[in-house]
Order: sequence, then structure tokens, then C-alpha cells
Amino acid sequence: MTDTITAPTRAAAQWLADFAAALAQGDIDTAVALFEPDSFWRDLVAFTWNIRTQEGPAAIRAMLQARLADTQPTAFALEGEATEADGVVDAWFTFETRVARGRGHLRLRNGKAWTLLTTMTELKGFEEKTGENRVKGAEHGVHKGRKNWLEKRRDEEAALGYTEQPEVVVIGGGQGGIALGARLRRLGVPTIIVERNAKAGDSWRKRYKSLCLHDPVWYDHLPYMPFPDDWPVFAPKDKIGDWLEMYTKIMELNYWSSTTAKKARFDETTQRWEVTVEREGKPVVLRPKQLVFALGVSGYPNVPKVAGAENFKGDQHHSSQHPGPEAYAGKKCVVLGSNNSAHDICAALWEHGADVTMIQRSSTHIAPSQSLMELALGGLYSEQAVKNGIDHHKGDLIFASVPYRIMHTFHIPVYEEMKKRDADLYARLEKAGFLLDFGVDGSGLFMKYLRRGSGYYIDVGASELVANGSIHLKSGVNIERVNEHSVTLTDGTELPADLLVYATGYGSMNGWLADLISPEIADKVGKCWGLGSDTPKDPGPWEGELRNMWKPTQVDNLWFHGGNLHQSRHYSQFLALQLKARIEGIDTPVYERAPSHHTR
Amino acid sequence: MTDTITAPTRAAAQWLADFAAALAQGDIDTAVALFEPDSFWRDLVAFTWNIRTQEGPAAIRAMLQARLADTQPTAFALEGEATEADGVVDAWFTFETRVARGRGHLRLRNGKAWTLLTTMTELKGFEEKTGENRVKGAEHGVHKGRKNWLEKRRDEEAALGYTEQPEVVVIGGGQGGIALGARLRRLGVPTIIVERNAKAGDSWRKRYKSLCLHDPVWYDHLPYMPFPDDWPVFAPKDKIGDWLEMYTKIMELNYWSSTTAKKARFDETTQRWEVTVEREGKPVVLRPKQLVFALGVSGYPNVPKVAGAENFKGDQHHSSQHPGPEAYAGKKCVVLGSNNSAHDICAALWEHGADVTMIQRSSTHIAPSQSLMELALGGLYSEQAVKNGIDHHKGDLIFASVPYRIMHTFHIPVYEEMKKRDADLYARLEKAGFLLDFGVDGSGLFMKYLRRGSGYYIDVGASELVANGSIHLKSGVNIERVNEHSVTLTDGTELPADLLVYATGYGSMNGWLADLISPEIADKVGKCWGLGSDTPKDPGPWEGELRNMWKPTQVDNLWFHGGNLHQSRHYSQFLALQLKARIEGIDTPVYERAPSHHTR
Repeated sequence: MTDTITAPTRAAAQWLADFAAALAQGDIDTAVALFEPDSFWRDLVAFTWNIRTQEGPAAIRAMLQARLADTQPTAFALEGEATEADGVVDAWFTFETRVARGRGHLRLRNGKAWTLLTTMTELKGFEEKTGENRVKGAEHGVHKGRKNWLEKRRDEEAALGYTEQPEVVVIGGGQGGIALGARLRRLGVPTIIVERNAKAGDSWRKRYKSLCLHDPVWYDHLPYMPFPDDWPVFAPKDKIGDWLEMYTKIMELNYWSSTTAKKARFDETTQRWEVTVEREGKPVVLRPKQLVFALGVSGYPNVPKVAGAENFKGDQHHSSQHPGPEAYAGKKCVVLGSNNSAHDICAALWEHGADVTMIQRSSTHIAPSQSLMELALGGLYSEQAVKNGIDHHKGDLIFASVPYRIMHTFHIPVYEEMKKRDADLYARLEKAGFLLDFGVDGSGLFMKYLRRGSGYYIDVGASELVANGSIHLKSGVNIERVNEHSVTLTDGTELPADLLVYATGYGSMNGWLADLISPEIADKVGKCWGLGSDTPKDPGPWEGELRNMWKPTQVDNLWFHGGNLHQSRHYSQFLALQLKARIEGIDTPVYERAPSHHTR
Repeated sequence: MTDTITAPTRAAAQWLADFAAALAQGDIDTAVALFEPDSFWRDLVAFTWNIRTQEGPAAIRAMLQARLADTQPTAFALEGEATEADGVVDAWFTFETRVARGRGHLRLRNGKAWTLLTTMTELKGFEEKTGENRVKGAEHGVHKGRKNWLEKRRDEEAALGYTEQPEVVVIGGGQGGIALGARLRRLGVPTIIVERNAKAGDSWRKRYKSLCLHDPVWYDHLPYMPFPDDWPVFAPKDKIGDWLEMYTKIMELNYWSSTTAKKARFDETTQRWEVTVEREGKPVVLRPKQLVFALGVSGYPNVPKVAGAENFKGDQHHSSQHPGPEAYAGKKCVVLGSNNSAHDICAALWEHGADVTMIQRSSTHIAPSQSLMELALGGLYSEQAVKNGIDHHKGDLIFASVPYRIMHTFHIPVYEEMKKRDADLYARLEKAGFLLDFGVDGSGLFMKYLRRGSGYYIDVGASELVANGSIHLKSGVNIERVNEHSVTLTDGTELPADLLVYATGYGSMNGWLADLISPEIADKVGKCWGLGSDTPKDPGPWEGELRNMWKPTQVDNLWFHGGNLHQSRHYSQFLALQLKARIEGIDTPVYERAPSHHTR
């Protein structure tokens, strides 16, 4: 090649032109032949009205056969220059469908597609009013009796949920509900967010005192309004709380704080939900078309049944009910569990002068925060990434472009490096008896997060306390029996205890449905989260996407939203577009709605 | 020229290299010879520790003779490509001085400098902690008894002003005080902002109901945190109020609301101010090194002495005291004045069913809002400008690069165009008897704003009501006498009146000093605002910069800040750097501190 600089761009442009031409002609054979045998096409709503990865040419063919005619993709155009590294060409492109505009990402190997990502960015005719299309604000001219912005806003607040019904109700007003609410507001979808706390941000404020975000700032932006450029790398919880509160107000969300969802049922006659909530002590019935659960990735607390627990004379509670360490100075504290919550609670208790023992039942993955930030996230979410032209918008799409089927292969080398870098800490933890793992395939933290949402601690300091014995450790055991003032472990040890914390995790999110709607609906929807990887706590069959998250479930008009700040930001885009399309009456045939294989 | 694309860049690079070399060698003759006879060098703090325009080679020579050796400018580097239009080359550059870094703008004609702008961007060693230098936030590791962010913030709030003294007190918590407060916070300068209202933003919320910003959104961003991209072109007052309130909280300003400044004096012994304030009813004495007045560009209300006013049986008040139109439906209302406030009040009264007469004493400039936005601001502050690469940071510098001496020549063509575009409105206004002007030299609104801060109405609708007679007009007259239930005009007309509003403007900002410090100090500082243009209400001699704004005054450690949102944003940068330098003990020799020629 004489012109090495533009070769990747030429290759990508050629592929895209061939692909576009084949799709335009309905020539599915030619389109499929552009993919290599080990290829993946991940689609976020644009082709499938679903979040779905087609794995391999046969699946790609099947999807095109079902969806090409209706989707009518056109206007494929390369965006910027393609790049090449290690024989892989990376390229960005935009495209349109009959009803929407989209953005995509392509990886080519030897001229054929290895991975293809297609995402919907906006619905035609329902674009967000930004930039030169923003509203004017002032109504120039003089009009008798006109209402101003504040009056209209107050009228809306007074009417919505009472004399006018919202199109969408979001249960849960943490980062997930807030981010989705902001997207829906921009799309003009009347929405109420229901939150039990008194103020937006309280779900952060109420957590333990020393908590800061475990993810760095570049990964954590909310939609539309990035953090200022002096925002701390790891934001303290109360500062995040203030940001969420401010964001909710500035984005003009209809945020019902001090409100608890009591029950919900779908009325087949009206084709609307009937959601009973208690707002500041008074019952209100909301009748939205669409209902979103955004109560956090953790479902109901798992509290193990331990013999004798009813006789315990001290305090005992699930980690989610732990009031903080203040009352336990000088007390004997036993914490059952060894994941994030267990470590956080043990460290806070130790800081406040308690005598703490952690009971580790099985091995745990420890990922030091600094290493995680530098090795795992730095390429996409860091000051350096921003300097390299990868802001969080681009980072989100690159992240999304990696198919779950092969994602672990991208992660394994990161954790190989972490093992070396943090060898000293790991050695000292093992010496202290701590049972370490890096996931069944060595793919570390993020795959554990996706597969099971547990099994790890992002080390922000507690591991040192475990390693140096400040936090006492009993590992490879469980609690066999709870006594009046102690616990007896499975190895026969008896530990005196004034406090017993069950840091034993949570059930699946569909647990919320069992309580608010019905056990039948909960089981029809099935387990949420997890990929079907057939690894511990993530039973098969393989799903290839997170179960029930941000996409149609087995129950129409019922949705799940949640995840960390990154996921709340990025996937709220696709959930909002799906909701908007339904509310506007756009046809949304869902391709291959995922079946439910597991009840909870 | 064979290579027209890079010719402007080559010319600019050559000039900058010659200039840098001359300055490095202390060769002032050569440096001055690089300027054309009609040249200007405007410096914002970088060379002069002042805000000052050197007009012509002699003034440039004098400044260099006084300041070159101390300033030690180096590291001049062109930034991006220069451009050329109408024989003028435009270029951007960066540079350093002994103590600071800066950014500049250059206009060349025939290879010589026509205008040069030098601005200070940061003090070396006192850079804002942003980007990769941001704070970490989380203190990873576990520490007994540590305080978290919220506790530290509360400690600071409890101590500052009581057990610890601020370095700076800003009197006035509108947009000016808030923007300056944010800059000082980033520079680590302990500051208290004193505001009489209960909440940040109330100064906007309390204004008349239909008020929206008269300036478009691109012109109005606060420092560090731009409005989201769906923010209305003309933001409604309550929305701006909410934004200011949120911004104050997110920026962690020490904002003392419900607090009134009572008196201030400089203590020569301690070299600190003694500022007595009443905070929520209790007196507190603050002892800052630096005192900033940010009470708005308008000083004390001007209320004319009119014969018989004491006998009036209706309501009468200055426009600043006007409670809004609600109580005056069906009443006879007389508004004395024809500027912004008069028009706004007349329109709101008419909207609420009052019978309104405007009394226009002398001619007024009417600038329709849409035309103003498109013709006057669009090049620097609009969606199109942003697309052209001119964001508000760049727009501010281009704006600042035009010397005041020749600024009117940039504006006259704009208003010539406005006369044509809005000819119909102007003709109908004149037919209704309205006395129009476009400034003594036809330079329109912004020059009136800079010279006198009055004499115009940005038309957002009331002019139509004047033109069509909905608002009655009496022009070329004044009120001769106030009677019990009417006013008698200088032409003998008697107008019945239930309400009499004096929309008669404000005195100079140093009026605040007379009241809070002493009349002697007020007169020593002298008149604020205005350029010395020797046009109506802006007496000479020529100053070339706004009097006493954002720069050292005749009283050390006493400063004025204010203006519209654009000015509050941009000039807060230079005021904050001057304050920071003094607090850090950096030598700040002020070049040619402006003398005071007028007492109020």
C-alpha cells in the first residue's frame, strides 16, 4: 500500500458501501457474506426494537429476513477517519431507518465484519429540541392573561397524576429513574418518577459516611449535563446527592418524593396500568401506559435462615438495614459475607472502634480501585481518553460495541496485569487466609458484575485492614448457629457477638414485581440481569444480553431500568426511545423477545 | 501568492515571532514599530495589572517602558490557523509572563498590528484544579475519625465569618457575585457573598412576571457550567433564578442569603476591611482583605423632585419599588420614563387591564430583540457561531479585542441594517409620536449601554402597544406638577392618575459607597461605568475603559463587579485573578490607575 494513512478509511468505506447496497436491494445473501464466520451484530433498538446481539452469519441472516423490509435502512455514511490496530479496522458511521436515525460502529478483519453495532439515536419527527431547534422561551409580544414559565410549570405539577395522567410512571428515583426521566422530558413524554425518600439524592446521602463513587468521574456523567471539569475523580456521596437533586430540578422532572408505590395492576380494558402510590401519606392512583421499575439492580434482600437467629440478644440485620457504625464502638461485630457491602461495613465499624470479624463463605474477587480505573476503564473513560477524542458519548458506544459473548476475552488480560501490579496486596490477603478469585475464567470484576452482580470488592481501603488483621477474618466457613450472645461457625468456632450483619446480597429485581404486582407476573417476566453464561449464579441458557434490562420483557408495557451511572446514562437513551415510539403509536415489532428461563 | 490558505498564518506567525524577539531583547523601539499608527493594545491584567487600552504607538511605548522588564513576556505561540478577511488578518496566540499564562488576539493590516489583545488566564503555581489535576475526592484507605466531604463543608460553613475570616467579601449575590464567587472558589480564595434575598436567584424571581432574558442563551452562560443544549433562547426569569440557586450550591459557594450589609470601613492598622452585616437578623462583623461591590450596574434610584408630589392621593413609587401590575386593573396609571423599565411596566399594566400613559421626556433608542440577536450578537453568540468554532469563550475574547475607541464603527452598520429591517415598526412608532434615536452617532444599543447604561428599550413587545395606541403616549413633555388625583404636564395637559411610576433610572454605582462606607470614599472612587465618550450622560475626559469596573479603583482593596451575564462571566475572570494575586502576595504594580474625574 502506498497510502497507509487512508487505507483503513478506504476499507471501511468500501465495506459500508457494499453493505448499504446489499441492504438497499434486499440482497440478504450478499449482506451476510460481508460478515466473517465469527461475527456479531449487536443492535440497540434500531433494527430489532430490542436489545439483541446476533451471533454469527446464520443469526444475522435470520434477523435481516425478519426485519430488513420493515426497517428500510439507508443513508449509511462513514463518520470521521477509520483507524487500524492489530489487523482490526475500527470505523464509525451514521445511518437512517424508515422511522429513525442511528449511529454505528464497525470492526473489520481482512475486509469482513467482525463486530457491527447499530444504535438508534432519534426518532424522525420526534427529535429533541436542542441547538438551533431549542424553544425560544420568551414569548415576545404582549398578551393579556398569559401564563409565564413558572405558572405553567406549577400548573403541570398540580395536574399531572391528578387531573391528567402520565404516559410513563417510573418507580424509583435514584440515578436510573432520574436519567430516564430527563430523557423522557426531552422527548416530551409526561412522566412521574416515584421515590420514597424525601429528596432526590437521598439514596446516596443515606449510605455509609465514607462512601465515594467507586467509578471515576469520566464514567459517571448523567445525560445532557456533564459534571464540571473540577469534579473529583471519585465523587463523595453527598456531593453526588446534591448533584442529583439539582439535576432533577433543572431538568424539570416531575419527581414525586416521599412517595411509595403500593401496588400495580394492568387494566386490560383501558390498556393502562393502575399504580397505587402513597404520596406524603395520601393514596393516589396513577394510570400510565408504561411502567418502569428502576429500583436498583439489587432486588429484595437475601437473608439466610440460620438456626437460633430468633434467640440472638444483640442487633441483627441485613446489610441494607445497617444503620452505620456509630452505635457499635467497643462492640463485638460479626459480618457475614465478603463482597462490597461486607467490606464497607467492616471498615466503617473498625474506623469507629468496633471489634470486627468478617466471615467469608466463599472466594471473592478483589479489584483495587486505582488499578481498576487505570487498567480497565482508562482507555475509554479518563482525562487521557478525552484528550484522545474519546468523550463519554464515544466511550459508551465503544463499550457497547463489544459483544458479550467475547467480552471476557477483552477483560482477561486486564486482570492478568492487575495480578502482577497488585501482587503484594494479593499475597498478604492470602497469607491472612482470604480466599481470592478472579472469576471462573479470570475475567475479573466487570464480567462478575454483568453475570451475577456480586462476588467482588472494589478495594478502597478495607483489604489492607483484612490483610493486616485489623478486621479479623474467618474464611471457608459459614454460621451454623446463632446463640444469645455469639455465633457458632461450621468449623465449631464460637465468636462472641453484639452485632450480626447479614451482608448476604439480594435477589433478582423481579422480586419487586412479586410484591407490587403479583408472583405470577414476577415469574412470567423472570430473572433480571445476568447473561446466561452458565457460570456461578448466572445459569444458562446463554442470552447474550442482560436479561430484561432496558428492553421488552415477557409482559408488555413493563420495563426494567438500572445499573451503575454509566449504564443509567447510556441505556436510558434506548429505553426512552422505545417508550416514546410506543406512546406516539409507531409500530414497534420486537424481534426475538427473550424468553424467560428462570423465575427469580 | 501560490499558497493562499496559509498566508494569513504565515503573516501572523512572522509578526508574533518579531514581536516576541523584540520583547525578549527589551527592544521597545522595534516592538513599537510593529504597530501601525492607528493601533490599539488592550491589556486585561497580563501586562498592566489593570484593564487598560493603550491607544497608538506612543501609549504602547510608554506602557512597555514601564512594564516590560517586570512582566517578562515569553513563549508566544500561535494558536490554530490565522484567517484573513477584508485585508485584516485575525490570529490567536498564547504567551506567558513571569507570573502568569495568557491568551491573546491579534489583527494585522499590511503586516502591522492594528489591534492587540493580551489577557491573563492563570497565575503560575495557582492553576485551577481541573482535568487531570482535579482532586481525587475519595480518600481511599481507612482512617479512624476522618471527616467526609459533607462534614468538612459544614465545618467550613460554620467557621467562615465567625472563627475564620474570609479573604474576600462580595456584597451582592446576583449573577455578578455568584460568577465571581465561583471563580474565587476554584482559586481557593475563602469568600463570603452577602445577599439580602432569601435565596440565590431571587433577584430574578422578584422581577415582573413576563420577564425573560433579553439576551440569547449563547451570550449568557455562567463560568464553568454551560446551560444544557435545550435551554431556551431567552430564558424565563424563574428558570434563571433556579439555575443560579443550583449553581451556587453545586459550586459550593459560601452564600449568605437573608443578609444585609450595613456599613464598612477599612482598618489601616490591620489592613483589613471591617464589614458589618446583619445575617438573619443578627449582626456579624466580617474582616476581609478585599471588598467587592456587586450590587448591579444600577446604583441608587433617581427620583425627580416634582412639585406637589407630596399631595398625591394615589400610589407613587420609583420603578425599582413597583410591586407589579396585579393591583391596578381598571386604574389610571402614569409612567414617567421611556427606557426598558418604563416599557416593561407599561406593558404589564396594560396586560392586566390598566389604562396606561407613558410620558417620554426625550428620545429613546428602540432595538427589537430578534434583530438585536441576529444582527448584533449572532456572529459571536449563536448556534451558528458555535458551529463556526466560536463558542462563548472565544466569543468573549473577540468581543474584548475591539478597542472601545473604535467600537462604535463596528456597531453603526448593524443599526443601519436594523433601521431598514424594522422600518415599519419605527415608522409606526414615529407616527404615534414616539421620539426615536439610535445614539448620537448612530451606534445603537450596546454603545449606549457602555456609555450611560440607559436610553434604550430592547423591544420584546411593548413597542407594538405604543405604536397601536394601547399604551397612551405623551412625548417631548415632563411632569410639571403632581395634583391629588392627576398630573399636569409641561404642555398644560392634565392626566388623571391613580398610580404614578417614576421610571427615571439610577445613579452611579458609587452611590452604594456613600451609604455603606462614606461620601468621601464614594467621591474618591468617583463615577462608575461609562467610557468618558463626551456623549449624553457620559462626560469626558476619555477613559477608554469602563470606569472603575473589574480593575483597581482609587481606593485600594475596593472593587466593583457587575454587568450583564456576559460581562459577569468574562470579567469575573480578571477580577478573580487580581484578587488572588494580592492574597498570595504576588507583586501587582498597577499601570496607570485611572484617575477620578466625576464624583457620582
